Amino acid sequence: MSALSFREATADDLEAIIRLHEEDELGSHGDAWTPENRPAYEAAFKAIAASAENKLFVALQDGEIVGTFQLTFIPNLTSRGALRVKVESVKVKAAKRSLGIGAQMIAFAEEEARKGGAAMLELTSNKTRKEAHRFYERIGFSRSHEGFKKKF
Amino acid sequence: MSALSFREATADDLEAIIRLHEEDELGSHGDAWTPENRPAYEAAFKAIAASAENKLFVALQDGEIVGTFQLTFIPNLTSRGALRVKVESVKVKAAKRSLGIGAQMIAFAEEEARKGGAAMLELTSNKTRKEAHRFYERIGFSRSHEGFKKKF
Repeated sequence: MSALSFREATADDLEAIIRLHEEDELGSHGDAWTPENRPAYEAAFKAIAASAENKLFVALQDGEIVGTFQLTFIPNLTSRGALRVKVESVKVKAAKRSLGIGAQMIAFAEEEARKGGAAMLELTSNKTRKEAHRFYERIGFSRSHEGFKKKF
Repeated sequence: MSALSFREATADDLEAIIRLHEEDELGSHGDAWTPENRPAYEAAFKAIAASAENKLFVALQDGEIVGTFQLTFIPNLTSRGALRVKVESVKVKAAKRSLGIGAQMIAFAEEEARKGGAAMLELTSNKTRKEAHRFYERIGFSRSHEGFKKKF
């Protein structure tokens, strides 16, 4: 596999990132790069870019965006005030899965979290994503929590 | 039960908040208001207070702090850029549990989230907290995700 590189996403990457969301096999979020959705994605991208605590990354291979993920640095009191980092919206291009890109992305995320002074990475994954769960356990995550959501 | 009121925490509330953490039956985070820990809590409180996306609340009853929780507003691309709110560090004073304080805290959290333009509340809860899981399902949360953590 050609080497991956990582950088923070720019507004010009937005379509490529949403195309990765489109390929999500669950599809439950209904994400698609359409003229109707575009303003909402652009507004959300601006909010992420303006946030001191959020970083949206892309993974590149041979100049192509093959993965994306977002980090949220969360200051909190628990564990004697240990900063934690939430990993969200982890997507790998469908044609490039099972080649180690996800593992490199999470390793990079961990490096970023450590550099930022965090003591922990955390993430949630839909209960139907059995393969993803095995992956996260393989790379050192503990499946210690139940994840609850309430949509309005 | 006397009525509850809610407000954002101030630095003066920090000891009372950490005392609620101390009462946590899991105790796995080792939180305690000791001279050794105090600077770490004060630094974490400052980081929360300085953050545009984090709000730490206390619930008061008859002038006493009986509960606490933290909200993190997370801009993200998923679901056409729907803003989400993570609820974290939900604690109710041990002597005041099972009286409806938790439900009022989460209802207040939902109101704050809606006012802030969010479309969803999310939280994780340690797999051993069976009673908490029943509580969250009863008040409308769906236990849809697995929660993973990796400590460094």
